[in-house]
Amino acid sequence: MSAIAFLTDFGIRDWFVGAMKGVALGIAPNSQVVDITHHLEPGDIRSASFGLKSCHMFYPEGTVFVVVVDPGVGSTRKILCARGGGRYYVGPDNGVLSQALEDISGDISVWNITNDNYFLHPLSATFHGRDIFTPVGAHVAAGVHVSKMGSLIDDYIRLPLPSPLVKNGSILGEIIYIDRFGNAFSNIDVNALSETTAQTVYLPRHDIELPTGKYYTAVDEHEPLGLINSEGYMEVAVNKGNAAKKFSLSIGDPVVVRTTSDTE
Amino acid sequence: MSAIAFLTDFGIRDWFVGAMKGVALGIAPNSQVVDITHHLEPGDIRSASFGLKSCHMFYPEGTVFVVVVDPGVGSTRKILCARGGGRYYVGPDNGVLSQALEDISGDISVWNITNDNYFLHPLSATFHGRDIFTPVGAHVAAGVHVSKMGSLIDDYIRLPLPSPLVKNGSILGEIIYIDRFGNAFSNIDVNALSETTAQTVYLPRHDIELPTGKYYTAVDEHEPLGLINSEGYMEVAVNKGNAAKKFSLSIGDPVVVRTTSDTE
Amino acid sequence: MSAIAFLTDFGIRDWFVGAMKGVALGIAPNSQVVDITHHLEPGDIRSASFGLKSCHMFYPEGTVFVVVVDPGVGSTRKILCARGGGRYYVGPDNGVLSQALEDISGDISVWNITNDNYFLHPLSATFHGRDIFTPVGAHVAAGVHVSKMGSLIDDYIRLPLPSPLVKNGSILGEIIYIDRFGNAFSNIDVNALSETTAQTVYLPRHDIELPTGKYYTAVDEHEPLGLINSEGYMEVAVNKGNAAKKFSLSIGDPVVVRTTSDTE
Repeated sequence: MSAIAFLTDFGIRDWFVGAMKGVALGIAPNSQVVDITHHLEPGDIRSASFGLKSCHMFYPEGTVFVVVVDPGVGSTRKILCARGGGRYYVGPDNGVLSQALEDISGDISVWNITNDNYFLHPLSATFHGRDIFTPVGAHVAAGVHVSKMGSLIDDYIRLPLPSPLVKNGSILGEIIYIDRFGNAFSNIDVNALSETTAQTVYLPRHDIELPTGKYYTAVDEHEPLGLINSEGYMEVAVNKGNAAKKFSLSIGDPVVVRTTSDTE
Repeated sequence: MSAIAFLTDFGIRDWFVGAMKGVALGIAPNSQVVDITHHLEPGDIRSASFGLKSCHMFYPEGTVFVVVVDPGVGSTRKILCARGGGRYYVGPDNGVLSQALEDISGDISVWNITNDNYFLHPLSATFHGRDIFTPVGAHVAAGVHVSKMGSLIDDYIRLPLPSPLVKNGSILGEIIYIDRFGNAFSNIDVNALSETTAQTVYLPRHDIELPTGKYYTAVDEHEPLGLINSEGYMEVAVNKGNAAKKFSLSIGDPVVVRTTSDTE
Repeated sequence: MSAIAFLTDFGIRDWFVGAMKGVALGIAPNSQVVDITHHLEPGDIRSASFGLKSCHMFYPEGTVFVVVVDPGVGSTRKILCARGGGRYYVGPDNGVLSQALEDISGDISVWNITNDNYFLHPLSATFHGRDIFTPVGAHVAAGVHVSKMGSLIDDYIRLPLPSPLVKNGSILGEIIYIDRFGNAFSNIDVNALSETTAQTVYLPRHDIELPTGKYYTAVDEHEPLGLINSEGYMEVAVNKGNAAKKFSLSIGDPVVVRTTSDTE
C-alpha cells in the first residue's frame, strides 16, 4: 500500500484538497492519502521546495509526492514526474521539486508528462492539482510506468538554495525559511559551520550580534539566539518568542556567522 | 479497504474530529479515514452541501461520506444514510446531503436511521457527529446493510442550488459560494452559458461590468474578471487578489452574465 | 493495519507533522497515520492531556498514540511509552499522557525509553517528535516489544484533573478546557452532579448565575447557560455565542454548581 503525500498551498477551508484525495483514491484505492501541509504561503515556490526537501527522505520507497504550488497554472509550464531513491515526485516545472531532487544521492529520472490519457476530463483551466497532478501521481501509485506518460528530460527548472559564502573567517548567508513559530532558518548549514568552533550570529540590517546555543533555553526567555536547528541550519530564534517578528525578518535577509576568536 | 471521508464544521483545534476518527476505526479498523474539510463556516449548510457535491464523485465506490454540519443537533431532525452511485452518505436531514444526491445520475435510496443499536452509548446530547453519524457510517463501511438501521424515506429535505434565469439575452444568477481566496462562485454554470459567445459579468449592486477570461492572468494583477472555474461555474475573481473583499460580496448577491453583442 | 495517531502542538503550516508521518510510514509502512489535532496551544500540556483522555478510548486495540507537546525538549525529561487497554501511548514525561492512562480501567505498563537504537540518527536537539517519539511509536506499531526499548517505571509524572469539592450543597470546580467555540469545560462531571437535581451555574468572578439546560437552545440566542457536554462535564456556554469571550474565562477560573432548592 503506497502513500500518496500531498504538499499544496490550497489551504484546508474548502473541499479542494478533499477532491484531490478523492481522485487519488478513485484511481489507486489501495493507496494511503497523507497530508504534508496545505498552508504554505500561496505561490511560495521556494518555501514549498524547501519543505519537500526537508521531509521527503523519511517516507518509504514507493511513496508518490504530489506537490501543487503552481502560480503558473494556465501558462505553458511543463508537468513533471521524477523518480529517485525509489520515490516519485509530481509537480509543475517551476523549481518546486528541485531541492528534493538535488537531495537524492543516487540517479534520478525526470519525465515531461504530456499523455493526457492520464489526466481527468473535462480538464479545467485552473485546477490542475485535481485534474493533472493528482491523477498522474495516482496512476504511478497504481503501477503505471512513468515512461507511458511522457518523455525523459534534463532541462527542468532548478531552484537551488543560495550557497553561503566564507569570507575573512565569517560565513555570509541569508534567511531561506520562516516557520510558524517565527524561527528564521538561514542557508548556513552544519557543513559550512564544521570548521569553526565558537560562533556568534550577526544580523547586518540590525547591527546586532546574537549568542549561539544548542537549545532555545540557552538564553533567557524572550532573548534571541542562533542555534543549529533540526534541519541542520543555523536559525535565528527567540526563546519562547518570535524572532521573525522581533527583528522584522524576511526571506533573503542577510545573516552572518562570525567565529569568536581570542582577539575579540 | 473503503474510505470514510469526513466533512464537518468542527475545526481542527480540538480533539473532536480525532474522536470521530477513533470511532470510525474502532468499528471499521480496515477503513481509511480521510479529511475533506472541517473548516466550513459553523452551521453553513449550503456551503457544505455545495462542497460535498463538488468532490464526492471523485471518490471510489464503497466510500462512506460522514457529513456533520448540524446546527439542529438536539432537535428532532432525522438522521439520514443515502446510497447512490455505489457510495454512501451519512448526515442530518437538513439539506446538507441533497446537492450531492441530486448530482448522482442513477437511482438513490435514502434511509431514516432510527436503530440506536448502531449508535454509541451513552449518547451525548450535543456530539452526534461522534455518537451517531460516525458509528452509522462506520458500520456501513464494515458491511452492515443500511436496511438494518432504519427505513426508506423519500421526503428528506432538499436544498437545491438556485437556478439562473435567462432574460432578454442576459443570465441572472447569484453568488453561491466564496472560497478562501475570495473567489465568488455564481450559480451560472457552463450549461447556462453554452448558448452565448462573448460575455461580460455585471454586478448590479456595484453597477460594474467585468471582462471575462479563461485564466486569472487574462487581466492585469489586482484587476477583476469573470471566469468559468474548475467546478464549471462563472466566478467573480481578482487576478492575485480577493474579489469577495474588493466588492464586499456575500452569498446571495446578484450576478448577471451579459452577452456582448455587436451593437454594443 | 494499526493506526498511528498524532496529537501535537506543531500546527500544520510547516512540514513538521509531514516529516513525522514520513518517519512513521518509513518504519511501519502498513500502518495508517491519523491526525487527532496539531493545534493545541503550544506547550499547553494540560489541554493536550485532557484532549488525549477525551478521544483515546474510541480507537481500536493496537493503536499507537504519539503525543508531542514537549516544552521541555532539550532538558532531561524522560521518554515514555505506556501500554494499557491494548493501546500504546508515546510521549514526554511531563504529564501529557497521564489523564488518558488514569482513564484506563485495567492494568497499565509504563516504560522509560532509553534504547537509542530505536531513535533516528543524527538526533536533532530540538525535534524529538520526529527523531524519538515517532520512531519509537512506529517500531511498536511494527511489532517491536516495548521491553526492548527501555525499562518499566512507576514514578512518571501525573497531571490529574483537579477534583471538584462539595461544600454546603454546592459543587466548587474550575475551568479545565476551552474549545474553539469558546465553550468552557469545568471539572464538574456527571458523577459529581448525579446526587443533585435542578441546578444553576454560578461564576464567582462575575457574580452571575446561569440557568442550566440539556441543549444550547434551552436559552435564547446569545444567552449563557450551563450544560452537561458531550464529554460529561458541566460546561459554561452561550447559545450561538462564545462564552469564554463573553465572560473573559480562563483555565483555572472558579465555577460553582448550586442546587436549586425550594427555599430559594
